[in-house]
Amino acid sequence: MKKIFVNELERYYDQEIEFQGFLEKVRDLPYVMFLILRDGTGKVQVTIEKNEENQHLVEIMGDVTLESTLKISGVLKESPAVKMGGKEIIPSQIEVTSKSESELPFDYNKKDNSLRETRLDYRFVDLRRSDNHLLFQIATLLEHSLREYCIQNNFMEIHSPKISGAAAESGAELFSLDYFGTKAYLSQSPQFYKQMAMASGFDKVFEIGPAFRAENSHTSYHATEINMADVEMSWISNYQEVMDFEEAWLKYGISKVYEKYGEDTEKEFKVKMTDLEKPFARITFQEAKKILKEKFHYIGEKEDDFERKEENLLCKYAKENFGTEFIFVTEFPFAARPFYHMLDENGNTCSYDLLFRGIEITTGAQREHRLDILKNQVLEKGISLESLDFYLEFFKYGMPPHGGFAIGLQRLLMLLFNIDNIREATYVYRGPTRLNP
Amino acid sequence: MKKIFVNELERYYDQEIEFQGFLEKVRDLPYVMFLILRDGTGKVQVTIEKNEENQHLVEIMGDVTLESTLKISGVLKESPAVKMGGKEIIPSQIEVTSKSESELPFDYNKKDNSLRETRLDYRFVDLRRSDNHLLFQIATLLEHSLREYCIQNNFMEIHSPKISGAAAESGAELFSLDYFGTKAYLSQSPQFYKQMAMASGFDKVFEIGPAFRAENSHTSYHATEINMADVEMSWISNYQEVMDFEEAWLKYGISKVYEKYGEDTEKEFKVKMTDLEKPFARITFQEAKKILKEKFHYIGEKEDDFERKEENLLCKYAKENFGTEFIFVTEFPFAARPFYHMLDENGNTCSYDLLFRGIEITTGAQREHRLDILKNQVLEKGISLESLDFYLEFFKYGMPPHGGFAIGLQRLLMLLFNIDNIREATYVYRGPTRLNP
Repeated sequence: MKKIFVNELERYYDQEIEFQGFLEKVRDLPYVMFLILRDGTGKVQVTIEKNEENQHLVEIMGDVTLESTLKISGVLKESPAVKMGGKEIIPSQIEVTSKSESELPFDYNKKDNSLRETRLDYRFVDLRRSDNHLLFQIATLLEHSLREYCIQNNFMEIHSPKISGAAAESGAELFSLDYFGTKAYLSQSPQFYKQMAMASGFDKVFEIGPAFRAENSHTSYHATEINMADVEMSWISNYQEVMDFEEAWLKYGISKVYEKYGEDTEKEFKVKMTDLEKPFARITFQEAKKILKEKFHYIGEKEDDFERKEENLLCKYAKENFGTEFIFVTEFPFAARPFYHMLDENGNTCSYDLLFRGIEITTGAQREHRLDILKNQVLEKGISLESLDFYLEFFKYGMPPHGGFAIGLQRLLMLLFNIDNIREATYVYRGPTRLNP
Repeated sequence: MKKIFVNELERYYDQEIEFQGFLEKVRDLPYVMFLILRDGTGKVQVTIEKNEENQHLVEIMGDVTLESTLKISGVLKESPAVKMGGKEIIPSQIEVTSKSESELPFDYNKKDNSLRETRLDYRFVDLRRSDNHLLFQIATLLEHSLREYCIQNNFMEIHSPKISGAAAESGAELFSLDYFGTKAYLSQSPQFYKQMAMASGFDKVFEIGPAFRAENSHTSYHATEINMADVEMSWISNYQEVMDFEEAWLKYGISKVYEKYGEDTEKEFKVKMTDLEKPFARITFQEAKKILKEKFHYIGEKEDDFERKEENLLCKYAKENFGTEFIFVTEFPFAARPFYHMLDENGNTCSYDLLFRGIEITTGAQREHRLDILKNQVLEKGISLESLDFYLEFFKYGMPPHGGFAIGLQRLLMLLFNIDNIREATYVYRGPTRLNP
């Protein structure tokens, strides 16, 4: 027989079923034994009357530890008196399919009673907690919805190589490896390879996959391996088209999650749903600096970029003035941007950052697609043309005007659901001092 | 204005539109100039009458090379006489957005006229060919449909770490890298981490992502980086449940592709659609060896496994006797299987291979979830328990019975669509001697 899940039980009243689950609780009374069993969809009570006929069941349960897994054959009864869903299973057989050690490494239901590092050491136990189940269900739906939106809009999905002979963008540090005697690198971004798809006439592409950064950072927002969503689209006339797409795309993905899990998330994560009705705010970098100075009397240390505090204030500004927690800041100075961003007539980049709840979640831009101008920008950044040979080749045989953006999905999850550390939003986290499990 | 794609044009007759595309062809006659422009959705004719008014357009087109990209403003006319879709654009403005070199590295429309290595060197040009566009559209839909089926069936998607401190399965060779002074490895499979999700009570998970193998193989089926789909499900009672799921899952994914692209694929790839109505054939390893001997008078060199020729014959057998090109061979001897496959009462594994069109595309199995038996199997394979410490830990605190499978998506694509080499079915191929572009 096939296992019935808790969320399907209602279809099986008064029938013989097979149920499997983790043993969550035992209440052993003189005349009856109550078990609570758990699967990924919920919990159900199993009731063993202590009579002659059931003696073998009581014996089996005699030395079963909590968190062991059980396989129960029995009849499902509708029992309004049972608090747990108004139903119970009356077992005829119980098989202990695996036995847990009597002591768990920590009490996973009491998150705050254990050090985070202990929880990460035993991540497989930590993930048993209901908020983690919910979080990874949300992550699944969010990612699927973002893909769905792309595919509905005729995007192709690519899988760019993660091992590469050339270091892609400069900036973040790269992991290197020996590749049959040659030095190779782990990809920090599909940037060059998604632009390559534009040269192939793929019109619009996306990729969701791992990106690697060998940065020795120990903040709550950095990891050496993250899950990135990349989008690139051809035939645009300006970077605003990229922003328009990203806004619609994010609204689609997040609203799908809210539709299915909205109330659960407010309860479980103690966080309000963000307003998706209002348009995202849009201001230029120059306007932003002016607002920071004049409204908030704050002048950041960086002239060409923002520090965290400025991002925070700008989000505050957007919420107060536009009723949205999302704000696009556009036209960053070239000094703060990579060589491949297109420049406008004022020498600023045709680019943007998207800020949400105080933090930058995306950088997007129209790319420079004209080879001669691109080469000049490479040189202006002090990069040698030779080091970018394979990339510059993409621009030689016709290259559509194009643009795109990238977003780290764990960071988005963290901000949407009030998760305080990327370690908690990652299935198995990787950082400079964490390579296990 | 936003670019209109070829497949949307019909909505814009007699309207001012903006069109962008690659310049595919120019036919320059005394009184008129015909351009053919191409985007990812099709081709359209642009007609320039050579009159006074259009002199600037004719001048612009004077030195434009083929494969350059153009931006056209003009009016779309319904013109039944035009062979290309019965429509044409009458331009008022033309902008050359990028200029191609006059000579392409090879003629991408004549695949067989160029060496494969040349085509791979210039993969971004090679991908402009229409069969490649179709192939990656199919790959996108196939993958999305496989995901969709999982999600409809309450699977969670995980992203397991690709950098790991421990070498996962033995067998295939691993790339190693320096990780902040420690030796780390690139993951050859999410095997251990998808099993970890079972210990976390995730019920059912899948992952589609890169897998890395440092094998110095130069066949048409091997790559050092592939796109793998992994599935793992808890609470099963036998490996047949895993096969049942995989069969339904593949049928769903492939039929979605056939629905949308069926006829196009038969034409473009010269391959018949496979029959998805019939159940996949199912025979045991022992039966298979018997059939090979008695029906085909063939005895393979390996007693515990198949060679390619045997896989071929078994597929022939399935087609002739069961009308399907898919055949599950079950209950392989333990000698041919990894330590974590569960054994049945005869000492054979609760596992299967799925063969399709002469080649193995999947290995699946119920996993051994009982720690004491699992440890014995580790030792029986001559592996030290210490080397698997972190993995064995997953089994200590309750582990549901579970099973799963993995499938390389490029290989599946190749077999479905008659692609003769994995290099052609991969966006950017990686092999021992290919690390670029």
